[in-house]
Formats: sequence, structure tokens, C-alpha cells
Amino acid sequence: MLVNGEQRDTIAIMDRGFQYGDGLFETIEVRENTPIFLEQHLQRLNVDSQRLYLPKLDLDLLHSEIQQICKNAGNSVLKIIITRGSGGRGYRQPDVIQPTRILSLHPFPDYPKSFYTDGIVTRLCETRLGLNPTLAGMKHLNRLEQIMARAEWNNSEIHEGIMLDFDRHVIEGTMTNLFYAKDGELFTALLKNCGIAGILRGWIFEQINVIEHNFFLDDLREADEIFVCNSIMGICGVRQIEQQHLKIGEITQKLQVALQVIKSQLFIQ
Amino acid sequence: MLVNGEQRDTIAIMDRGFQYGDGLFETIEVRENTPIFLEQHLQRLNVDSQRLYLPKLDLDLLHSEIQQICKNAGNSVLKIIITRGSGGRGYRQPDVIQPTRILSLHPFPDYPKSFYTDGIVTRLCETRLGLNPTLAGMKHLNRLEQIMARAEWNNSEIHEGIMLDFDRHVIEGTMTNLFYAKDGELFTALLKNCGIAGILRGWIFEQINVIEHNFFLDDLREADEIFVCNSIMGICGVRQIEQQHLKIGEITQKLQVALQVIKSQLFIQ
Repeated sequence: MLVNGEQRDTIAIMDRGFQYGDGLFETIEVRENTPIFLEQHLQRLNVDSQRLYLPKLDLDLLHSEIQQICKNAGNSVLKIIITRGSGGRGYRQPDVIQPTRILSLHPFPDYPKSFYTDGIVTRLCETRLGLNPTLAGMKHLNRLEQIMARAEWNNSEIHEGIMLDFDRHVIEGTMTNLFYAKDGELFTALLKNCGIAGILRGWIFEQINVIEHNFFLDDLREADEIFVCNSIMGICGVRQIEQQHLKIGEITQKLQVALQVIKSQLFIQ
Repeated sequence: MLVNGEQRDTIAIMDRGFQYGDGLFETIEVRENTPIFLEQHLQRLNVDSQRLYLPKLDLDLLHSEIQQICKNAGNSVLKIIITRGSGGRGYRQPDVIQPTRILSLHPFPDYPKSFYTDGIVTRLCETRLGLNPTLAGMKHLNRLEQIMARAEWNNSEIHEGIMLDFDRHVIEGTMTNLFYAKDGELFTALLKNCGIAGILRGWIFEQINVIEHNFFLDDLREADEIFVCNSIMGICGVRQIEQQHLKIGEITQKLQVALQVIKSQLFIQ
């Protein structure tokens, strides 16, 4: 782990990341020492930093530290955390903000092949996502909603939980974005009031026409195909939501192939 | 600072309090080495721990550490943080949760006397509180809303910002609960969708009949008196909200006196 460029595994208790969740994070796939979609991740970090009134990121410095930590990373997960740094007690931010940046490597999860060929099993979470346009879309450090939702089940045969918001709109998985296809068209949730605008979600928007809208469980029940995605898991068809069974559809498979192609191209360059 | 009983000023980066804001805190006035309303603070911590599926608090241990840290604390602020402890990457909580508990002392803020005699100046925040019944009322570590609101002004002549929720209900200050009186009756916000159920708010409920309801800015504009409160600041009349001027009213003054009385009684026992 690198904390502001130094090897450490601790952080100051007075860091506002710890005191208030006052910061952002990114979770990046590293394949053969190469961070995938790095520019997109750093761009989101940059945009969200501005939304949180954090100082401008030093992208050169971040790039050089990422290169350093990924040199022998093999296949793993790179997590970047940016916080507002240390400050006194109280919500008021310090007059001079010295952000803390933390880079850490984690083992790449061992997802079974069946996740991609047969799809995953999901449940509906009782925990709802709160409505907050100010924070919607950001991958910030206030993640109690996801933790409460993920704490609802302990059965390893259920791979993901689907979350609604308090308006009953279907939004996303606890750790993934969710898409569904109906009559050849692809849909996903508007992230106006909640949810995280994932990097892979953004990449899918560049591949195919996606309709962002508010939708409900009934729309999922009539869907031809459903898939979830995130930067680590990639794209996984959903084969089951509670008692509803689905097949892995054509759009899901096409996007899975396209993602494999673009990832392999990264190594040809 | 005491971290799980040891003197330290750092915390593991993998602590879920830092990774996700996965925990709770209390901010307690210490006067002449004595924590004020300690039982109420610990009871809230206990109740909110259950809401977050945290393990049962070891209250005996907490009491003994609080006694230890407050021995020579004089007049100061005691902050207690409880987190879900360290765990792997991902929202899923570890199978065995070993919470982290942190006790720290901070200088007592130097509030001018005029805060209590003449009242404070407030503004209306543009940042709204999100709607989330699952988390409403708790003093948890996900505090980005308050930070965004408190970052709206830097003028030291404004002492507090008043926050509305996304339904336009007036809820509270960035760091205080808010009450208003009209025709001899006292009102405060329902904290069903957002807000923090403060200890002093609870104490006021025990002193006088309070009507919890949803209210709007128009209700504040017609109020006879308005005050805010928290465990550190006590009870402060509001003498100004934007362009609206108010006098410190009778109910405010009576509660201020009652609070002084109960605090002084703590030292007679």
C-alpha cells in the first residue's frame, strides 16, 4: 500500500476519510501488470473530486505511483482512495486541504467461469437506496447503504443483490450496475437520485444505444435478458432473480465478447 | 487517543470505518473530567449499533476506557467512534466482526457568551439532505451531506447553516437539531427520512411537550422563536436566518436555564 507515496498500512485517525467518509475511491482491474480503463477511472475521480470540492488531482503523480505499484501486480485489483486529508473535529473543511491518496493492491477475485457462460443468481434486497441527487453517481466513501444491503444474505449461492430506491425504481446491484434488454433495446437506470455511475456502464454506453430511464420490478419481470457489470467482475448475465429464471441473451453475449476484444487489444498495442 | 484500549493515533487502512464509513460516532461534552449525558450517548450508540448489525457493545469496557481517558480531561470534547473493524475488500461484512473502538479528546470550542444571550446567525444551505429511512436518525460515519453543506460558507459571522431535505422539509442545522416555537407550542422535524436524533433533542423531549412534524420554511418565517442545539454547543437561540430577524424567546431561555441546572446538579451528586 502507498499512502501519499510512502509504504504504510495505516492512516491518521483524524483523516476525514475515516471521520466522515469524506472522499472517493476507484476499483480497477489490473491484468498482467496493466490497469484496465485507467484513463476512464482517473477521469471519474477527477470529475467527482470537483463535485466534492476537493483540490484538483495531481494526475502525473497518480500515474507515476500507479505505474510503481502495478509493476509486479500481475492480475489483481488496484484500489485508489482520495480523501480530504486530516483536519480538526467538525464538518468544516480545513482552510488548506491536503488530500490523502492511497493506492493498494488486492487479490483478483476467483469468479467461476459459469458466471459468464451460465450467468449469476441474484436476490432482491430489502435495503433501499436513499434519494440524494447531490451525491448520486459518485463512488464516494459513504457506503452504508451497500453494506446494509450486502448484509442481508450469507448464502454463497446468491451472487448479487438487486437494489431499489425509495421511489421503488430498480437502480443497480450492491456492487454492480444493472441493464435489461426488451425487444432488442437495452435499458438501464437513470442515476439522478442514487447509484454509482460505473466505468463499465459508461463503456457500454459507447458500444450500443442504451435508454436510461426510471423502471420498476415489473419491467425486469418482462425483460428478455438482464445483466450486471462492474470493473472487476466484467459483464455477467443474470440467470435468476428470486423465482424468475432467464437465459443469457444475445446482447449480453455480444457485449461480453466486445469487452474481451478491447481488453486483449490493450496488450497488443 | 485510545484505539481498542491502546494509545495510537492511526487506524488500519483496511478498517471498514475508513473504507466505507461503516460505523458510528458520539460527541460528548466533558466538564471537569465528567462526561455529560454519558448514559444517553452510550444508549444511542447501543441502539444504532443494532440498527447497523454491529456486535453488541461491551459497555463495561467502554465505561472503563471513558473513565481512563477523562481522568484529566478538564473541559473538553470526548469523541467515540465504533466501526465494523477490518475486513477484506468488498461490502460484505467479515464472518467474524471485531469492531474497532476509538476514544479521543478534543479542545472544547470557545463559543462566545453572545451565542447564548443574543443568539446566533444562520443561513439556509443549498445542499439538501437525502431521503433514506434506513439510515435516518443515526449518527453514523457517512457524513458527506453535512460536509457539502458546511463547505457552502466561509464567513465566520455565520454560525450555522439550516438544511432542508429533498422534500423541502426543514430538518436541522449542519451540526445541530432545530426547534421553533409558535403560540406557546414547540415544534421540531420528524426524523423519518433523514437527520440525526441528537441527545439534547431527546433531553428536550423530556422537559416539555414537543410536536414532531414535517414543516417548511414558511413555518420558520412565522415562528415566534427558533433555537438550535447539540451536545457541545448546548441550546442557542437563532437571532437571524438570512434576512429574517428574531428575538430569543421565553421557551428557549427556560430550556437554557433547565440545561444549566441539570448540568450543575451532576456535580453536586
